[in-house]
Amino acid sequence: MTSITQSMLEAIETELQHQVARLDQPGTKPFHEMLTYHMGWTGEGAGPLATGKRIRPLITLLAVSSVIDKEEKQESNDNYWLHAVSAAAAIEMIHNFSLVHDDIQDNSNLRRGRRTVWVKWGAPMAINVGDAMFVIANQSILDLIEHYPADMVVKAARILNNCCLDLTRGQFLDMSYEERNDLGIEDYWPMIGGKTSALLSACTHIGSLLGYAKEKQQEAYRLFGYHLGLAFQVQDDILGIWGDEALTGKSAASDLVEGKNSLPVLFALGKNGKFANRWKQGPITVDEVSAVSALLEDEGGREFAEKMSEEETQKALDYLKEANPQGAAGEEMLGLANMLLKRKQ
Amino acid sequence: MTSITQSMLEAIETELQHQVARLDQPGTKPFHEMLTYHMGWTGEGAGPLATGKRIRPLITLLAVSSVIDKEEKQESNDNYWLHAVSAAAAIEMIHNFSLVHDDIQDNSNLRRGRRTVWVKWGAPMAINVGDAMFVIANQSILDLIEHYPADMVVKAARILNNCCLDLTRGQFLDMSYEERNDLGIEDYWPMIGGKTSALLSACTHIGSLLGYAKEKQQEAYRLFGYHLGLAFQVQDDILGIWGDEALTGKSAASDLVEGKNSLPVLFALGKNGKFANRWKQGPITVDEVSAVSALLEDEGGREFAEKMSEEETQKALDYLKEANPQGAAGEEMLGLANMLLKRKQ
Repeated sequence: MTSITQSMLEAIETELQHQVARLDQPGTKPFHEMLTYHMGWTGEGAGPLATGKRIRPLITLLAVSSVIDKEEKQESNDNYWLHAVSAAAAIEMIHNFSLVHDDIQDNSNLRRGRRTVWVKWGAPMAINVGDAMFVIANQSILDLIEHYPADMVVKAARILNNCCLDLTRGQFLDMSYEERNDLGIEDYWPMIGGKTSALLSACTHIGSLLGYAKEKQQEAYRLFGYHLGLAFQVQDDILGIWGDEALTGKSAASDLVEGKNSLPVLFALGKNGKFANRWKQGPITVDEVSAVSALLEDEGGREFAEKMSEEETQKALDYLKEANPQGAAGEEMLGLANMLLKRKQ
Repeated sequence: MTSITQSMLEAIETELQHQVARLDQPGTKPFHEMLTYHMGWTGEGAGPLATGKRIRPLITLLAVSSVIDKEEKQESNDNYWLHAVSAAAAIEMIHNFSLVHDDIQDNSNLRRGRRTVWVKWGAPMAINVGDAMFVIANQSILDLIEHYPADMVVKAARILNNCCLDLTRGQFLDMSYEERNDLGIEDYWPMIGGKTSALLSACTHIGSLLGYAKEKQQEAYRLFGYHLGLAFQVQDDILGIWGDEALTGKSAASDLVEGKNSLPVLFALGKNGKFANRWKQGPITVDEVSAVSALLEDEGGREFAEKMSEEETQKALDYLKEANPQGAAGEEMLGLANMLLKRKQ
C-alpha cells in the first residue's frame, strides 16, 4: 500500500469516528455503541476485517487528489484532499446506513462474519441505527462548509441525496422482483444502477467536484464511477454463481440458492427455457447448484454476463482516461479500478 | 381560517406533491404510490383527514412571514414566504418519515384511521419508504438554493439534520425505556426534547432564518418552538390519561393501557409508591384504567404534569413575545400556539 492511500485510509477512519461520536453523549452511549459495533470498531470481532475496506471513501479522496495537476500546485497543498474528508465519511456512512437497513429487509444474520445489528438489538433499534447513520452522513457532507464555499457544499449535498434516492429506487426494485414472475434482462440495469452504481458514481462525482474539476471533467469522473459500479456488480454476479465457493455448493454464498436476481439469471429468465422453468418452481437446493449453473451456462447466461462485464469495464476505463487523473492519486485510482474489475493490470 | 393560512396550506400541499413526485417514474410507480398513500393523497380513506394538519410546515411559513415588519416591505413582497415553501415541505417529510418508521417500531396497525404502510406492504418496503421520505426531505431543503444564498441553505440544512439526530436520540431513549425498571422524572425531558420538541424548534428556527431574522431573534423563535413542543407534549400526556376517551377506558388510546412513559407516569415511578408498584407488575388492563389513573392522581402525577404544562406554556409565550412576530402571520402564529396549548385565548 502506498503512502497516499495509507494516509487517506487513516484520515477516513479518524473522521468517521469523529462523526459518529455525535451520539457519544450521556444517556445515549448504548446507542453510540450500536453504531461503533456496526462500523467495526467495538464489540466481538472488531478490527480491520469488521470495518470493511472503505473503498468508496478512498475512491472519493483519490478523485479529489487526482484532479489538479501537480505542476500547477504548491508543494504545501499536497494534502488538500484532507479538506474533503468529511465528504468521504458521508459516503461511507450512506453505504453503512443502507447495509444496516438491508440486513433487516433481507433477514440476514451475518455481516462481515459478525451478527447484524438487528440480530443483536432487534429490528426497531436497527431501523433507528440506520436512520442515525443517514443523518450523520448528511451532517458530514454539510461539514464541508469548514473548507469549501457554500455553493460547492450545496452541490455536493445535492449529488449525495440524489444518489440516495436512487438507492431507495434500486432497493424497491430488488424487493419488488421477489414477487414477480415475468422478469427479464431489461429489469437488471435500473436495479443495479440504483443499488451499486449510484453510490460509486457519487464518489467520483463529488470527489472531482471537491478537487475543483471543471464541469466536463466532473462528468467523466462521474461516468467512470457509474460504469465501474456496473462492471463490478456484473463481475460479482458471475462469481456468485461460477466462483469457486459457489460452484462447490458448500457455501451458502451461492446466489442461485439465495434466489438472487443476478444478470445471468435475468438473461435466462428472458429466454424462458429450461432454466426459467426450474427457477420459477421454487428455491434451488444446494444439491442442485452444479446442475442448474450448468443449465444456466448452456443457455448463454454466463457468456452474456461476461460480455457485459467486458463492455462495462471498457466504458469505465474509457471514462477514466477522459477524466485524466493526475499524479500518485491518479495512479492509485487506476490500480484500485483494476483491482475491483479483477484485472491483472 | 384566514386567507394567509389557507394560501400557505395550499402551497405546502402542492410543494409536497411536487417533491414526492421525484419517485413518479417508469418502474417505480408502485413505490411512489406507497408515499402518496402515507401522505394521505391516494388509496382508501384519502383526503383531509388522512393528510394530517400540516401544522409543522405551517408554523415554519408563519415564522418566515412574521419576521419582517410590514412597514419596511414592498407590497409585492407579501408572498415572499413562498420562497421558503420547500423548507416547510422538508420538515413535513421528516415528520412523516419518522411516523412510517415509528409505526414499524411500535407495531402500530393504524395511523390516522388507516392501515399503516408496513401493514399494507410489509416492513421491508416500509423501511424503504421511510428512507425515501428522509432523502426527499433533504432534497427539499437543498432546493432552497433556487431562492436563497448558498450559505443560508447550508445553515438551514444543518439545523434540519441536527434536529433529525435529536429525533433518533429521542427514539432510542423511548425504546430503551421499555426494558428499564428504574425510570424517573429526569428521564422524561431528554426523550421528549428529541421526539417532540426538536422538530418544532427546527420549524421556528429555520422559518425565522429564512425570514432573514437576526441571530438573537432566531434564538427567540427557536426557543419558542422548543417550549411549545414541550408544553404540547405534556398536555398530550395529561389528556392521554385524564382526557374523556382515556378515562372511560373504552378507547385503546389510553396511554396507561399502552404502557406509555408519559410525564405523570415517570413522576410517579420516581416516587416509588403504590402506582410504581402496580406499573412494574405488567400491563394495565382496560378495566383497571379508572382505578390506576386515580392512584396516579393521588400520588401527584396529574398535579405535577399540569404545573409543568403551565410553566412550559409560559416559557413558550415569553419567547414568542421576545421573537416579536409581525403582521397577519404573527397573529396567526399566536393563535396557532394558543390552539396547540389548548388555551381559549
